[in-house]
Order: sequence, then C-alpha cells, then structure tokens
Amino acid sequence: MSQHPSHTFASHSLAELAERFGLRLQGDGGRRIEGVATLAHAQAGQISFLSTGKYAAQLAATNAGAVILREEHLADCPVDALVAADPYVAYAKIAALYERLPAAAPGIHPSAVVDVGAKVAPGASIGPCCVIERGATVEDGAVLGPHCIVGEDCIVGAQSRLVARVTLVTRVTLGRRVLVHPGVVIGSDGFGLAFERDHWLKIPQLGGVRIGDDCEIGANTTIDRGALDDTVLEEDVRLDNQIQIAHNVHVGAHTAMAGCAAVAGSARIGRWCQIGGNAGVLGHLELADRVTITAKSLVTHSIREPGEYSSGTPLQDNRQWRKSAARFKHLDDFARRLSALEKDNNDE
Amino acid sequence: MSQHPSHTFASHSLAELAERFGLRLQGDGGRRIEGVATLAHAQAGQISFLSTGKYAAQLAATNAGAVILREEHLADCPVDALVAADPYVAYAKIAALYERLPAAAPGIHPSAVVDVGAKVAPGASIGPCCVIERGATVEDGAVLGPHCIVGEDCIVGAQSRLVARVTLVTRVTLGRRVLVHPGVVIGSDGFGLAFERDHWLKIPQLGGVRIGDDCEIGANTTIDRGALDDTVLEEDVRLDNQIQIAHNVHVGAHTAMAGCAAVAGSARIGRWCQIGGNAGVLGHLELADRVTITAKSLVTHSIREPGEYSSGTPLQDNRQWRKSAARFKHLDDFARRLSALEKDNNDE
Amino acid sequence: MSQHPSHTFASHSLAELAERFGLRLQGDGGRRIEGVATLAHAQAGQISFLSTGKYAAQLAATNAGAVILREEHLADCPVDALVAADPYVAYAKIAALYERLPAAAPGIHPSAVVDVGAKVAPGASIGPCCVIERGATVEDGAVLGPHCIVGEDCIVGAQSRLVARVTLVTRVTLGRRVLVHPGVVIGSDGFGLAFERDHWLKIPQLGGVRIGDDCEIGANTTIDRGALDDTVLEEDVRLDNQIQIAHNVHVGAHTAMAGCAAVAGSARIGRWCQIGGNAGVLGHLELADRVTITAKSLVTHSIREPGEYSSGTPLQDNRQWRKSAARFKHLDDFARRLSALEKDNNDE
Repeated sequence: MSQHPSHTFASHSLAELAERFGLRLQGDGGRRIEGVATLAHAQAGQISFLSTGKYAAQLAATNAGAVILREEHLADCPVDALVAADPYVAYAKIAALYERLPAAAPGIHPSAVVDVGAKVAPGASIGPCCVIERGATVEDGAVLGPHCIVGEDCIVGAQSRLVARVTLVTRVTLGRRVLVHPGVVIGSDGFGLAFERDHWLKIPQLGGVRIGDDCEIGANTTIDRGALDDTVLEEDVRLDNQIQIAHNVHVGAHTAMAGCAAVAGSARIGRWCQIGGNAGVLGHLELADRVTITAKSLVTHSIREPGEYSSGTPLQDNRQWRKSAARFKHLDDFARRLSALEKDNNDE
Repeated sequence: MSQHPSHTFASHSLAELAERFGLRLQGDGGRRIEGVATLAHAQAGQISFLSTGKYAAQLAATNAGAVILREEHLADCPVDALVAADPYVAYAKIAALYERLPAAAPGIHPSAVVDVGAKVAPGASIGPCCVIERGATVEDGAVLGPHCIVGEDCIVGAQSRLVARVTLVTRVTLGRRVLVHPGVVIGSDGFGLAFERDHWLKIPQLGGVRIGDDCEIGANTTIDRGALDDTVLEEDVRLDNQIQIAHNVHVGAHTAMAGCAAVAGSARIGRWCQIGGNAGVLGHLELADRVTITAKSLVTHSIREPGEYSSGTPLQDNRQWRKSAARFKHLDDFARRLSALEKDNNDE
Repeated sequence: MSQHPSHTFASHSLAELAERFGLRLQGDGGRRIEGVATLAHAQAGQISFLSTGKYAAQLAATNAGAVILREEHLADCPVDALVAADPYVAYAKIAALYERLPAAAPGIHPSAVVDVGAKVAPGASIGPCCVIERGATVEDGAVLGPHCIVGEDCIVGAQSRLVARVTLVTRVTLGRRVLVHPGVVIGSDGFGLAFERDHWLKIPQLGGVRIGDDCEIGANTTIDRGALDDTVLEEDVRLDNQIQIAHNVHVGAHTAMAGCAAVAGSARIGRWCQIGGNAGVLGHLELADRVTITAKSLVTHSIREPGEYSSGTPLQDNRQWRKSAARFKHLDDFARRLSALEKDNNDE
C-alpha cells in the first residue's frame, strides 16, 4: 500500500554510475553518492549537473561531491566529474536511482470497493477508498493510490501508476507504464450538442479513450472520450497540468504539452510536437509532425510544415499598451491610407 | 449502484425509428438497427448520419445499414435512409436509444457516509464512498456515482446525475435532470478580498449557487458561490470542461461555453450566448442575448448587441510574428506619422 | 466532524460592532444586527455597506437596519450607520461574525484511513474518507473535510482548513491558518523532461512545496513540487480557482492571482503583486514587488519596475476584427513603407 513506503536510501559509487550509464569518470571512482542536488546546494555526498553554460559560474563554487558535465566544462570543475554528451539526460537517469517512491505492496486495501465483475491482477496494488467497477481490469504491477476510480470497461495497463484521486470514467484503456497524477479525469463525456428550435439536445458520447504506453498525464488534466470513435494519445505523450483534450482528438507519439494547453474536438496533432502553456488548437485542425506552438498562441488553421508558430502581442507598460491596442482597431484604415499616400507620391 | 450496470443492448427496426421521430423512411422498414457509428466505420446493423456536405464523399462508400440525411443527399445514398430536416438532431435522439448508462439501483452503498440530518429519497442511488452532509437533500431518481460529496444545505434535484467525484460545497441547489461530470466543484468560496494596510482580509462568502433544470457541467469545472446573493445558471446552460464561473455570475438560459472559458465576478451573460474555448469575460460586465465570443477572446466591455465578437491576433510563423509583434508596440507612433504625411501632402 | 455543524446564529448590537471595530456610530446603538446583506436586499435586522459611489443610488432606498459607509455618504443615509475610513474592510470584519462554518469536532471519522506512522493532533478534525499516509502530520486545530489525502511527509499546520477533497501528494508543508478549497492538488510532480534521441526521459521531482501562513488556495488549483529545491508561496498569498503553479516557482508574500492564471517553472514573483485572470508568466522570469498584470496578458520578459503591464488586443465586432487581424500580419511591411514615404517627402 502507498502508506507503507520503503525508507531505504540509495548509495552508489561514482565508478558504478560511470560504468552503468557509459560516462567518463574523472576523479575518485570510490566516492559514494547518496543523492542529487543543485550546484548551489549540493553537499559532499551528492552529485549535481551542469547542462548549460548559464550556470557555469556556480560550478567553481560548488560543494558537490561530483558534477555531471560536458567535456568543455571539465577544466573548470573543482570536484570529481562524470563527463556526458548530454549531462541533462545523464542526470535524469542517475537521479532516478535516488527517487524514493512509496513501495506499493500488492493487494487491495480493505477500504477499497472492488466489484465482483472487475479483474484485479494479484500483483496490482489498490489503495484506500479506490472504487473498481464492473468490467474493469487492473493489470499486473499497476499501482493505484488512494481514491482512484476505475469505471466500467476501463483497463489500467501493467506497471501503470495512478498517483491518487484519478477517475477513469468508462471505456478508457491505459497502456503500460502510464503515469497519471491526482485530479485527472479520463473518459468523461465529450461536449456534443445539437440545437433544436430553442434548446440543446445532448449527443451521446459512445466512444472511448486510448492512452499509449509511457504517457504521463498532469494533475487536474481532462481527456474526454470520443463521440463515436475513440480519443487517442499515442505512446510517450507528455501532458502537464490542467490540460483539456476534447473528444476524438488524436495526439501523435512523443508530443509534449505545457500546462493549461487545450485541444478542441477532432483536432489531429502530429508526433514530436510541442504545445506551449495555455496554447489552444481549434477543432478539426491538423498539425504536422515537429510543430512547436509558443505559449498562449491560438492555432486557427491547419499547419502542414514543421516549425515554430505564434500569435498574440508583446507585453507593454499598460499606458503604452492602451495606445497600441486602440490603434489596432484601425489597422485596416491605416493600410488604405498608406496605399493612398503611395499612389499620390507615384502620381507626382 | 453504478457497479451493477445493465448489459442489455437496444434493437429497433428502421420503421420504428422513422415513426418515433417523424422521419421519412426510404428502404427496408424491417431492417434491425443495433447501434450507431460514423459513415466510415458503420456496419450493416448500424445507422449513421450525414449532417453536412463535408462528409458527402463518405456516403457513397458507407457500409452502414442506414443513414440519416437531408432530402438533398437522398439520391446519393447507397443504402436505406431516414430523411430528416436536421439529421444531426435526429441522430441525437436515435443515438440516445443506444447509449448504455450504468443502471443505478436505488439505495445507498454501504461505504457511503450519510448524515442523520440528510434527506435521501428512497428512489435515489448513492454510490460508493459518497458523503452526504447535514441538511442536504437528494431527490427521487437522482444518481450519485462514487466519491460524490453533497455538503450542508445542498439540494440535488430529481433525476439529476453526478457521474463521479463531484463536490457540492454548501448552499448549492441543482434543478432536475442536471448532469455533472467528475471533478466538478460547485459552491466553493468566491474570491473576495479587502486589502488592509499591508495584508489581505477575506470577505466571507455567504451566498449560494442555483443551477437550473437540464444544465450540464463539464469535468473539473468550478462554480463559486455568491458573496451575498447567489451565483445563478438558468435552465439548459451547457458548460464544457475546466470552466471557471466566479461568484455572483448570472448565466442566461441555453447559453453554452466551450472548454476553459472563464467568467469573472458579477458578470451577467444573456440567453442563447456561445462563449468560445478559453474565452474570458471580465467582472461586472453585461452580455446581451445571442452574443457569440470566439475562442481565446477577452471581453473587456459590456456588449449590448447580438453578434460575434473577437480579440487576439492570427497565428504566424514565429519569425514573421516576431516582426509584427515588435511593430505592434509602435502603432501609436505609426498613426501620428501617417497623419503627418497626409497633412504634408494636403499642404502641397 | 463537518457533518455536525453548529446552527447557532450570531446577534450583535450596533454599539457593540462600533466599539469592537473602532467605527463611529450614528443612530440606535441598541439595534440588533443578525446578519449582512446588500443595500438592495437587506432587511431591518441586517447591516449593509457602501464602499464606492457606484451604489450610492441604492442607499436612499435601502431597507437595511444599518449601513457601513464613509463620512461623505452619511448625510444621504436614511437609516442607522457605522462610519468607516474603509467601509469594505470594516464590512469584511463584521461579516466574519455572521459566517456559519461547520463546527468541526476534534477527532477522526471512522471511515478515515490514518496510517500508524502518521501524527494527528488530538485537537485536529479528520473528516469522512480522509487518507493520512505514513510520515504525515496534522497539527492542532486543523480541519480536514471529507475525502482529503495527506501524503507522505506532508504537514498541515495548526488551524489550517482543507475544505474537502484536497490532495497533498508528498513533501508538502502548509503553514498555519491556510485555507485550501476542494479539488486542489499540491505537491504533484513538476513537468520535467529530457529528450533522448527519439523519446522523453522523466526528470524525477525530488523537491517539495512550502506554503506560508494565511495563504488561500482556490478550487482545482494545482501547485507542483520542486525538481530539487522547493516550490514556495510566502505568507498571505491568495490564489483563486484553477491556477497552475509550476515547479520551483517562488511567490512573494501578499501576492494575489485571479482565476486561471498560470506561472511556469522557476519564475520568481515579488510581493504585493496582482496577476489577472488567465494571465501567464513564462519560466525563469522575475517580477519585482507591486507588479500588476492585467487579465489574459502573457509575461514574456522579467519586470524590474512596479506598475501595470498588459498584452493582447481589444475586443471588436468579428468582421472588424478580421480586418485588423489580417493587417497585423503585415505590420513590418507597413513600417518600411511608412519610412520610405517619409524619406521621399524629405528628399523633395
């Protein structure tokens, strides 16, 4: 259960880390590393990293036991070092050794409510107050923290982890090693309405949601199920917090979205795309692979070419901004007057 | 209980559907329809629909048993058909026959916590881990899925459905047939603060929330209760996911808002309005009936006339956008220079 | 427990209120005040307030028993009055006397799941279905409503109140008198990724979150824990609903943010700042003290000077807006042509 965590701490020698991740060691291979920290705060028993020149100044003063860095910074390193082509990638792998996840013992917490028609693998861990409904499946090694709801006909794939208070409504399939953070709702009704004379009629949402292997879904994100076909996230899609994915959206593999991004119904987003914070994509559009949308931009047409796209205006002092904004309303008039002046000059 | 769904499937003859919904039948009235699907994926036992010319190309190739369409498309239909003035409306009604909702048996799940001072109608269904607090009322035919909280002095109207994990904080009244999706919070404190010298004082939020009949509230949407009077949604208001409705907002009947829209305190929105995704309305403004706000627009002044309103700039390649954005800061200067040039020319 | 509220109502004489809050009394000091209401709706037993001239018209017609107002409005007041330098501040204090919070009896609800390795003070109140995990601490006088989760190594400070369904994931420390509304998630993983060849690697999020005394966190807001160091909110920070605070953000004391604001990773926001609704701050930026950002603006660079800052364009009728937006794309071209015309004129 999540409330019986293991409290053992990891310890590895520098030589061990170098060999395990194919890094070049400079210094004392026998040095014990018990954790990771920033260049500014690391102590003797900890390893830090330098991925950009931006923090190079901190390198000289670091008290870290060792630093992961690029060849180019090695000469300036006052302590032991591990040389990596990409120090941030090497750091990600090394830091994972020191992450202390709650050890989740297999089994079902007595306060959980599991329907007789649900399948829970013996190796799965179901936390306090979870509700597993009829026709649901939780595969081996899956870990459900407290207050998770797995609705009818939902599948939680092997080794997936629902941190806490995650709701899978219905017809949701999570692949393997999917990580879902608290407050997430997957498989809620898509927003489908038909207008009849003077009132709305609800369009039944009869599809489901398919989430690929190795996806991560941030806190309080919502992903609606499809109207007829499914809403789909391919493998390794990474969603930050409070993202809204509407019904029948298709997100390509390895695409990442920052907090508060929103994608409207039936939009199709390519692979290796990056959607900035609070950016929006209108419905039924298509984005090619490797498209980047900057923060708070609104995508109003399909994008066929890889590249970076933006909308909006720059931040200004409010008094200045009011002047720009007032003039924005008359841009069409300006354009006509500018053309008229050019014509006059040419006629002279 | 939600974990004992009915698994019976619906089956209707084409003639039956035609008669029930007043549609013109062409073809075999005896054909059995067991479900709905898209033109592209429908099989012999399923009915599909064509509401816009956009998908007309798919009509010729469909394997559907029948298609709901307009008179004008009848000639191109290779299979049986139901002719409707508005195929999407007809589809909404027919699809509803095939939606399989969990059958909710009346009663209170043993894991639910119901205060002795709460009233739960015998015909209501209270799911696992629900909490019904003192002074709360759940009317007949209401269905509460798992993990719903109905706080003090809240009322859940007859036939309303709280899908799962819905929180009604206090002084919230839901009308009849209200549908609320997971993660919704209604009746939380409005954001009221007074600044005294060097710190904030909280303004107690003493009002409530009134939600009319037939409203739908999307996943993770938040609706604050009023400071003194109530926050109000009239009947048939339709809210998508992650919408924020601040205290004392009044939303007129039949208004719909797309995902991530936000309405600030005491704004008054008319009837039949449509607020686009991530659009915002500032506080204390009034919007007339039948106002449409496009996605991501910010409403900064009251709107007296029906119509469509927008703000923002179009999406551009980032390099181009940077140039436009830089020039935006100097629009006021441009305007002055333009006028000066016009004056020069006229003086000549 | 939250389901056993006290239903006693408050009653104070006008003289008592005047003396307690240092206000000047005009009229019958013996008048009993049993509640607060708006000028428009207040009855004889209630007190109202007039803080801005905007509502002065309502003063003449009010049926309130008394009104809190400024000296300047006293002459126009048809009923008893309390004269205050800042009527809204005085109202905040008086209204607090009439707020009826659920009386939370100390103790742990039988349906709560408290780990043997957790510390819950005898004076704390733990509601139905709460889950308190190993290493967690709930201090004296803290009140947890239904469905709260206090994860490993989290601390809920004395007198803090988690209204309902709040999740503290891990390494979260709340100060004293912190008020957290339903649906809030604090301490979820920050969004940290490293890209290796063709896929994402997760950066373990090993830091925590520290929330200062007297902070308020709105419904469905998310605050991620730090990657290595902590995410920090200093004292008296006030967050509205659906706000996203990314990992390693630092928010200065007394800063307030309106609904749907978002702050990206490692941004540092000063004290007494006000961030408007749905405004955004990009990562690694710094905002000075007393900076105001208007609604929906995007902060794209650090701000060194106090003041008000904005971005965006004004709302227009959609047809007009389309023209402005189309021209926006050609601003750089306009600027060049304008300069060329000026050069021509000067050459003449």
